[in-house]
Amino acid sequence: MAQQKKMVEAITSMDEDFAKWYTDVCKKAELVEYTSVKGCMVIRPYGYAIWENIQSILDKMFKETGHENVCMPMFIPESLLQKEADHVEGFAPECAWVTYGGSEKLEERLCVRPTSETLFCEHFKNIVHSHRDLPKLYNQWVSVVRWEKTTRPFLRSREFLWQEGHTLHATPEEAIEETERMLNVYTTFCHDYLAMPVIQGQKTDSDKFAGAERTYCIEALMHDGKALQAATSHYFGNGFAKAFDIQFANKDNKLEYPYQTSWGSTTRLIGAIIMTHGDDNGLVLPPAVAPIQAMVIPIAQHKEGVLEKAGEITERLNKVCRARMDDSDNSPGWKFAEYEMKGVPVRVEIGPKDIEKNQCVIVTRHNREKTFVSLDNLEDAVIEKLKEVHDGIYQSALENRERRTYAALTMDEITKRLEENGDGFIKAMWCGDEACEDKVKEITGVGSRCIPLEQENLSDVCVCCGKPAKHMVYWGKAY
Amino acid sequence: MAQQKKMVEAITSMDEDFAKWYTDVCKKAELVEYTSVKGCMVIRPYGYAIWENIQSILDKMFKETGHENVCMPMFIPESLLQKEADHVEGFAPECAWVTYGGSEKLEERLCVRPTSETLFCEHFKNIVHSHRDLPKLYNQWVSVVRWEKTTRPFLRSREFLWQEGHTLHATPEEAIEETERMLNVYTTFCHDYLAMPVIQGQKTDSDKFAGAERTYCIEALMHDGKALQAATSHYFGNGFAKAFDIQFANKDNKLEYPYQTSWGSTTRLIGAIIMTHGDDNGLVLPPAVAPIQAMVIPIAQHKEGVLEKAGEITERLNKVCRARMDDSDNSPGWKFAEYEMKGVPVRVEIGPKDIEKNQCVIVTRHNREKTFVSLDNLEDAVIEKLKEVHDGIYQSALENRERRTYAALTMDEITKRLEENGDGFIKAMWCGDEACEDKVKEITGVGSRCIPLEQENLSDVCVCCGKPAKHMVYWGKAY
Repeated sequence: MAQQKKMVEAITSMDEDFAKWYTDVCKKAELVEYTSVKGCMVIRPYGYAIWENIQSILDKMFKETGHENVCMPMFIPESLLQKEADHVEGFAPECAWVTYGGSEKLEERLCVRPTSETLFCEHFKNIVHSHRDLPKLYNQWVSVVRWEKTTRPFLRSREFLWQEGHTLHATPEEAIEETERMLNVYTTFCHDYLAMPVIQGQKTDSDKFAGAERTYCIEALMHDGKALQAATSHYFGNGFAKAFDIQFANKDNKLEYPYQTSWGSTTRLIGAIIMTHGDDNGLVLPPAVAPIQAMVIPIAQHKEGVLEKAGEITERLNKVCRARMDDSDNSPGWKFAEYEMKGVPVRVEIGPKDIEKNQCVIVTRHNREKTFVSLDNLEDAVIEKLKEVHDGIYQSALENRERRTYAALTMDEITKRLEENGDGFIKAMWCGDEACEDKVKEITGVGSRCIPLEQENLSDVCVCCGKPAKHMVYWGKAY
Repeated sequence: MAQQKKMVEAITSMDEDFAKWYTDVCKKAELVEYTSVKGCMVIRPYGYAIWENIQSILDKMFKETGHENVCMPMFIPESLLQKEADHVEGFAPECAWVTYGGSEKLEERLCVRPTSETLFCEHFKNIVHSHRDLPKLYNQWVSVVRWEKTTRPFLRSREFLWQEGHTLHATPEEAIEETERMLNVYTTFCHDYLAMPVIQGQKTDSDKFAGAERTYCIEALMHDGKALQAATSHYFGNGFAKAFDIQFANKDNKLEYPYQTSWGSTTRLIGAIIMTHGDDNGLVLPPAVAPIQAMVIPIAQHKEGVLEKAGEITERLNKVCRARMDDSDNSPGWKFAEYEMKGVPVRVEIGPKDIEKNQCVIVTRHNREKTFVSLDNLEDAVIEKLKEVHDGIYQSALENRERRTYAALTMDEITKRLEENGDGFIKAMWCGDEACEDKVKEITGVGSRCIPLEQENLSDVCVCCGKPAKHMVYWGKAY
């Protein structure tokens, strides 16, 4: 019990200091560790296993929608990065630059990719000549580098893991459809696998990806009321194609510029999982991406037959989910705390009395509810409980978001809402003018998160200037 | 047929120019494409799919032997790289150096990892304190950078994909056992999945990994008689642990330095596949890693019922292997050439006459043998044929190696063998002196590839100096 207490006490509570709670969880759940490489982190086995699960689900969804994986170089020559004006302006300030190879100074410096549009464009120019070569539906799983000043594990680091999709199409309609399709893939993934409700929307012009015509995003609300962009999907028009001179012969054998998209999601998703579902006992993992879905803990394991039975049920469970047994010397209490910290969705306890009664105890992580279950239908019960955890944490996250979403008709109302209720989403009308967007941020502290695809008409006028409103916007503070 | 001819004629024949044949295959089979980033390449969908298959098989083998995946930063501060003297001496000359982050010059330059021993050591120091923390059995799938002067797709490029295993153990025995275990894993992988016979051996001291006590390797012989190192496994002793001050409290609570290993394999394996199994019609892929294992080609596909039947058998085959159908407008002849170029192990042809007879034609890529097969047991027949391809190409590769392996007792004999028979493995005795190793290379042109684990006693004296021999060595030219 001493150790159990030690472990639980070691986390700062969410209400006391959310930022500290977050880094405590990252560290205590053994997700990451710091290194001497400033702003970069080690993703430890438990953290990486979550990413592997995310990867394997998303990769399957990408392949089912016709995409193929490729791998581009990690370096971009400076001249290549400069080909699209908006793009270089957006990314150059945060590039890491390689200037030496061995002891020789390079003739042209290379940036470590912050994103790979330019490389994909160069490649598309090489391989696309005819309408028969289209569409190209590519994706890659790599890491990218952005030289950030302030960093936090998963949320903002100088190097992070991600996937970037890059596609090329004959018509704008097809490219827009692709942009929307991938936004929907991300949305389904967040809902069905991460148990994370998200709002689909479009970024305002000031917040678009550097070089994009339109940027779509999904926005989630964290436990502390701050928003987190969980994924983005960009429509480029043919701006990049023109800058890189990518052309294809259409069916009439005339040259045309193709239309392009890109879309991405990153290890940030792990940060989003932590801040959406976690609690003061640590991590709470959505079952679909949990490295261990059911942890079997033998009670009084020195007693005859206990370890054997626990091993037997672990083996049975392993056929229907990712199950493990902890038969270490640590006390059951210590183990309970350990796997609560690590967010294992379902705990299965089994001791001598349970064995006598042909039962075990199932405890669900998110609400700590105990259920006695007959060993006869253990598998079904655990599968059922995993579904309960998924649904339960999805509901809690949705309730948190709804509780923290306020409509406001005036600037004063925005300020008042935030003062009274703390951070959250503010829904308010906007005229479309960047000056108003800036002013809202300046006065109230909340920026535009997105123009949601599902619009509501709260009023006819802009919350800031009173002129006719064009859109309802979600405003908030963001990670 | 015009197109088919064009395609086949476009490859240089192996005998004419093996190097040119190799790059032709890389390009025509759509494995890679060049970029403006010197020495780096795009791995295209077909090439990357081979790597994904390699990855998924090896990853499973690593996990089954108790290893966990992690992810280290891609950068190494110069001071960290310098901690182990041999290591920095070996790698610094080929490091790419990051000197700027955005517009700011870095206080300390960072190298893009050429390998990650130093990062793993720093991490181990942070997380290992007690014998209870051991062993650590880690692996990561990343890309690394080595600033090579001359590059060739897959074989030698400035950036390449690989996995690097890093493990830490309480005793030297355990670490040596791990080094050998992973050498065996690679060997099994090459034999059972790549159909590539390899020789297990130990590198001579002059050829060891920078910082290792012992380097084990597996060496394969390519079609042209040159050797290729397919994977390595290093035993470090506790040299790195001492340099990085990693210590653990043993069971008696005394501090000890742990023992370490690392082991790796890379996208070179794809180069090895090409040069082991390929022929003048292009690639020949081992079925286990082939992105498409069976390609269904409808004959006279405009005739009623053909496409339907071809689709039906593709669907059936997809349940037992990776099958696809090509129903494009290209002629069957063009398609035959295309998928021979791409090395698809099994081709299934089906036309109106076959349908009448309830049969199809199966053609195996490596020997172009045709078999008529009843549609009733199509699945079994294709599985059987895939096994035949695996066994057939393994046997050919083994015969090629045996035909090109010569024992030599004198320097003259080495020279004569090479002159008469071209490149290959030379087996010859060696005293263990580096001077003799250098002299053999200088005079005959072949370097030591490895001291094979399976030793033979060809004579009692060194092939070079005549002093007592310590080992039999495989000598050869290498990629």
